[in-house]
Amino acid sequence: MKRFEPLSPSLRCIMTPGPVEVDPRVLRAMSLPVLGQFDPEFTHIMNETMEMLRTLFATKNQWAYPVDGTSRSGLEAAMVSLIAPGDRVLVPIFGRFGNLLHELAERCGAEVFTLERPWGGVFPQEEIVEAIRSLKPDVVAVVHGETSTGRVQPLDRIGAACREQDALLIVDAVATLGGVPVETDAWMLDAVIGGTQKCLSIPAGMAPITYNDRAEAKVLKRKAIERGLRTADAANGELPVVRSNYFDLGMLQDYWSAQRLNHHTEMTSMLYALREGVRLVLEEGLAARHTRHKLHEQALVAGLTAMGLELYGDSDCKLTVVTCVIIPEGIDGEAVRTMLLEHFGIEIASSFGPLKGMIWRIGTMGFSARENNVLRLLGALEAVLLRHGHTVASGLAVQAALDVYEVK
Amino acid sequence: MKRFEPLSPSLRCIMTPGPVEVDPRVLRAMSLPVLGQFDPEFTHIMNETMEMLRTLFATKNQWAYPVDGTSRSGLEAAMVSLIAPGDRVLVPIFGRFGNLLHELAERCGAEVFTLERPWGGVFPQEEIVEAIRSLKPDVVAVVHGETSTGRVQPLDRIGAACREQDALLIVDAVATLGGVPVETDAWMLDAVIGGTQKCLSIPAGMAPITYNDRAEAKVLKRKAIERGLRTADAANGELPVVRSNYFDLGMLQDYWSAQRLNHHTEMTSMLYALREGVRLVLEEGLAARHTRHKLHEQALVAGLTAMGLELYGDSDCKLTVVTCVIIPEGIDGEAVRTMLLEHFGIEIASSFGPLKGMIWRIGTMGFSARENNVLRLLGALEAVLLRHGHTVASGLAVQAALDVYEVK
Repeated sequence: MKRFEPLSPSLRCIMTPGPVEVDPRVLRAMSLPVLGQFDPEFTHIMNETMEMLRTLFATKNQWAYPVDGTSRSGLEAAMVSLIAPGDRVLVPIFGRFGNLLHELAERCGAEVFTLERPWGGVFPQEEIVEAIRSLKPDVVAVVHGETSTGRVQPLDRIGAACREQDALLIVDAVATLGGVPVETDAWMLDAVIGGTQKCLSIPAGMAPITYNDRAEAKVLKRKAIERGLRTADAANGELPVVRSNYFDLGMLQDYWSAQRLNHHTEMTSMLYALREGVRLVLEEGLAARHTRHKLHEQALVAGLTAMGLELYGDSDCKLTVVTCVIIPEGIDGEAVRTMLLEHFGIEIASSFGPLKGMIWRIGTMGFSARENNVLRLLGALEAVLLRHGHTVASGLAVQAALDVYEVK
Repeated sequence: MKRFEPLSPSLRCIMTPGPVEVDPRVLRAMSLPVLGQFDPEFTHIMNETMEMLRTLFATKNQWAYPVDGTSRSGLEAAMVSLIAPGDRVLVPIFGRFGNLLHELAERCGAEVFTLERPWGGVFPQEEIVEAIRSLKPDVVAVVHGETSTGRVQPLDRIGAACREQDALLIVDAVATLGGVPVETDAWMLDAVIGGTQKCLSIPAGMAPITYNDRAEAKVLKRKAIERGLRTADAANGELPVVRSNYFDLGMLQDYWSAQRLNHHTEMTSMLYALREGVRLVLEEGLAARHTRHKLHEQALVAGLTAMGLELYGDSDCKLTVVTCVIIPEGIDGEAVRTMLLEHFGIEIASSFGPLKGMIWRIGTMGFSARENNVLRLLGALEAVLLRHGHTVASGLAVQAALDVYEVK
């Protein structure tokens, strides 16, 4: 039988919009011995994690817990549980992840209506509000931070319009939670999904979500009683049963409740990582963390601009934690990325769909958003561009970034 | 803001049918720094993991990769991708996890037919074969190792009957993979789902699956082209699109193929754990590992029997890796479990549904299946039973187990 070597991954400086570097304290938490899922010590950790997540989401919601899968699993859990087949769903799209919400809604059997904006911009909230008033959807699903284009959609006025029409508002905050403000209660968001591997800087593998009583009411209307427990007179809810067992929020919340009704086996080590990662976020403080992300973005942007590079997209709605750079004329974007990785150990991201080959995307997220990383990337990118024959005003980028750091 | 302490879980001896203790080498792998998901070093790890999984599943199938979620996610991925709405699905049920397959099939929109056996036994294969011939289902879904009752269903003759009727055979090997033989190709299983937190002794969080060309053909008939990439003349497959995006095997296999078509963000650290865990299984050797599991079961059974305890269920189909013990008359099973945990740091499992309060379930799985664990449990259980006023022939249990170990 072929023998395989123990793992020994290289140390990377990861400046993509996720996954990003993980604080060694979070990695260390993952190496702790596991507990059984009904061990009182473990259920205590589950409860503490819920408590921390409420603070992170800025909510008083009862329900705030992780879905056991990558970020996309949290999106699907919210969509499939809150969208009944035949529901009218409005999806404003301004990048790739709006398209994903559209696809998820279609697979839920919804009647989907879209609004579209050219990539690189976002919607004036009024446009979404008007569409809600005229379409009267059952559910509105919208992306907060769109990593494909590096834009952030203002959301503080959408929730009120949804309540007026009795629609539920589902928000994809995968890219923003822990990096820029996400105000679940103040913005009247009914369900919010975060991601671990972006601004929380935890390995991919869980999707923290929260939802309020309005959302829970719909979930409870879809409640099914499991075979074997079902009695002759037991009636199911008035709406069709959720199409997924794994993503049925009604069953997940029973598992996360004091009842501990067994569903799946909780991901012990990932939960350790989530708890430790969110603990570090709360120790830093949400406001301080948002300020820190802004600082590293400013230093990065100052450096890139000083180097003579042009940023992509509408600057009014730039997402703090992702910076999109137009690949200069005549430069092979992939060759630059490869050289950054192979010679400097630095990873930046390429792009999707209509932007493929047109822009690079640089993340300043979580533990990766550090002064030494930003300076290292700027110096390396300058060197690689020079190596590729691109004219760069040498030496200015790192100086410009240092100027930002020295003012702070 | 409330402050939370760093994690510091107690060290437990976990003798449940999952999750079980994890080899420190696997835990250490989880603490390694992460790589980006398209880093060539990372995609190499993905490819190596697929190669290892093929050996583990005893298959030449092209597709063998993890679904990113707990074991149940692998079951749902196989079911939702291979069962089209309206399909006829046969589910033989002999415990809780057969009921789960039934529920998953219902949520897929299938017409579900069941065979049922009293808990504690399994089906003569002929009974399933006859049902396949008379019902002519599109899909048969069956549990291999039923942890709720500690039974193992022989499967070597079901696959041929399925091919005769052009049905697909989906097997839940969550509890057996890595502990007792699972012969994907030799038994003609079309799709097999394993679990990490049982005999593989890896933390819960991934579900290794494999499926053959027959299964893939059905997946490809359900292929959808994602919005944004879809052209006017693009036709979808002849069968309805898979209801889930996250669990669509067509999209998952594109991500795991050389194409690397982006789907979710791979769970970096969980994949490290899976690779290291499976690496250790292959180093030990599958045959040696099965023998080891058998040995610890024999020692455990010898000890329990010597103590005067009675085992539950039909001994002809006892699952090596789970031993079900009838709780003696007058003993509060939960009080015994609590005392084992609180005073001895040992966890054994309770049970579900009709067996609730009637039996304990003891796992001998993966890294937990060690001589010192078995001896420690037997000594502790004897002491706790004595403490609860149950008459036990003192001192015999550990001696009986030692007899087994000394003969080996």
